[in-house]
Amino acid sequence: MTTTNPKDGTETVATSGDPLPSWNEGALKKDIIDYVTKVTKEGSPDFIPVENRIATFDNDGTLWAEKPYVQELFAFYRVKKMVEANPALAQKQPFKAVVEKDKAFFEKGGDKALIELVAATHTGMTEDEFEADAAAFFAGAKYPGKNVSLKQIRYQPQLELLNYLRVNGFKTFIVTGGTVELVRAISADFYGIPKDQVVGTSFKYTFDDTTNSIKRQAALDHFNDKEGKPVGIQLHIGQRPVFACGNEGGAGDLAMLRYSQGNKYPSFQLIVNHNDSIREYSYQEKDNLSLSTAAKYKYHVISIKDDWKKVFPDK
Amino acid sequence: MTTTNPKDGTETVATSGDPLPSWNEGALKKDIIDYVTKVTKEGSPDFIPVENRIATFDNDGTLWAEKPYVQELFAFYRVKKMVEANPALAQKQPFKAVVEKDKAFFEKGGDKALIELVAATHTGMTEDEFEADAAAFFAGAKYPGKNVSLKQIRYQPQLELLNYLRVNGFKTFIVTGGTVELVRAISADFYGIPKDQVVGTSFKYTFDDTTNSIKRQAALDHFNDKEGKPVGIQLHIGQRPVFACGNEGGAGDLAMLRYSQGNKYPSFQLIVNHNDSIREYSYQEKDNLSLSTAAKYKYHVISIKDDWKKVFPDK
Repeated sequence: MTTTNPKDGTETVATSGDPLPSWNEGALKKDIIDYVTKVTKEGSPDFIPVENRIATFDNDGTLWAEKPYVQELFAFYRVKKMVEANPALAQKQPFKAVVEKDKAFFEKGGDKALIELVAATHTGMTEDEFEADAAAFFAGAKYPGKNVSLKQIRYQPQLELLNYLRVNGFKTFIVTGGTVELVRAISADFYGIPKDQVVGTSFKYTFDDTTNSIKRQAALDHFNDKEGKPVGIQLHIGQRPVFACGNEGGAGDLAMLRYSQGNKYPSFQLIVNHNDSIREYSYQEKDNLSLSTAAKYKYHVISIKDDWKKVFPDK
Repeated sequence: MTTTNPKDGTETVATSGDPLPSWNEGALKKDIIDYVTKVTKEGSPDFIPVENRIATFDNDGTLWAEKPYVQELFAFYRVKKMVEANPALAQKQPFKAVVEKDKAFFEKGGDKALIELVAATHTGMTEDEFEADAAAFFAGAKYPGKNVSLKQIRYQPQLELLNYLRVNGFKTFIVTGGTVELVRAISADFYGIPKDQVVGTSFKYTFDDTTNSIKRQAALDHFNDKEGKPVGIQLHIGQRPVFACGNEGGAGDLAMLRYSQGNKYPSFQLIVNHNDSIREYSYQEKDNLSLSTAAKYKYHVISIKDDWKKVFPDK
């Protein structure tokens, strides 16, 4: 039996029986279900009106794997195409580092070098051209090390959680540090989330009346990571989420979780801990900031190893 | 009988019989109904998938009256409160001009003076404080010259059009030159449109972790008028609308209508012509740019005088 979700307009499977079959039984699964049950019960002091049931999810490392970032794979794909069209680019940075597989260049350059690479490969064309290219990339890409399609690096338990929230009247949003249009290329197909419910990093756009098109400029408009996430949420969604989910790894989601916790309604914060080297990856922040902040503010932590019965979907 | 709209999650009245009772019979009403009928008919070459049924409406002069702008009334309300708290402000521009009812100051200063007034009265507080103030304003405000609540300056035929589109699977957005949070204060109650489906002019925000709040800075982030509208639509909604509606008066909606017309699906553009001095207002652009552009690109024009049987709702 399927139902049409009243908020997102996407088809969702009705959850008769266990709404979260890929989650192991335990305290965390119980806490999630208890929370959703109490805030959706009319007449309860914890009841949240439907229009305030806003749920925000980070994408990389929260809804799908981030080793490596899909954004990086797309940038490499663009470099290949751009260098084929103009071989002289292979001598210019950051193209040169990609062509020569110079990992040290990006390790040394950090976020700045990555943003430079993204700007160089994601801008300078019209919006329509960019979207056609993103669609072609997703149709053919395989995830390194796993040799599966990008659809198969989504986390199955999170797909069930998104669905469970929507069936209960929550409107689900992606709030990503990645660039907004790349995630929008797959948000409906991969997650059942419409394009306008994706908030992300954006470039400056200009409208050209003559060609009736939007041109993507090589300048950041909004960097939607860390303190940028509450700002992006406020500008786009216009209210604090009651349910927010991110991951440890780069401490990018702490401000979003904190902002959610300031909600006047009962709220729920979740952080994915990447501690399963066998089924996924194991990586921790050097200063352990995300997990220590989770302990300080009583956020819920997902242990992939212990809480997820199954990590990836079959197809 | 009422139905729940599958896209917006707002209650809408099912349209049995005439879906647009406040519209006079004629070519325009027929064109609107023919368009909606053909693009929602499965199997038709003109069929538009539900996820692409995006409808965008300007607010001032399109969904409600704009003589004067509600944004201006709110700015005046804020000036009064700010001067009461700090009487020295009455000697400083732009406060002085408001206190002394110096219309020439704003006529001479144009858009720049108005933006300065809006920035001075809409920023410098937290987002939560701003929202509380906007709610208080809307609860008490009366529209000058008409002595009615602000709910009664909405256009009844447009409420029916929004509803008709939603019943047919369109997701309706407000794309306003006004500031986004002021319109979000009433979008659900006045128009059945959720906060996250309002795109508007915005200020720069910063997130303060210590107080867990967002501070509104006195600097523009995005000016959502003219060429800013397609940009705002792309950043927020992520696709061209198929249905776009604006008004003549300040030529602010032409770029949005043009952007809509570039859609790969059949599209529909509408412009409200304010030509009814008896029931509403009569004002025309000096250069007639909106109406001449409508003729050039074959946009549909609403003559308030001839096309609307009734202008304002009863309550």
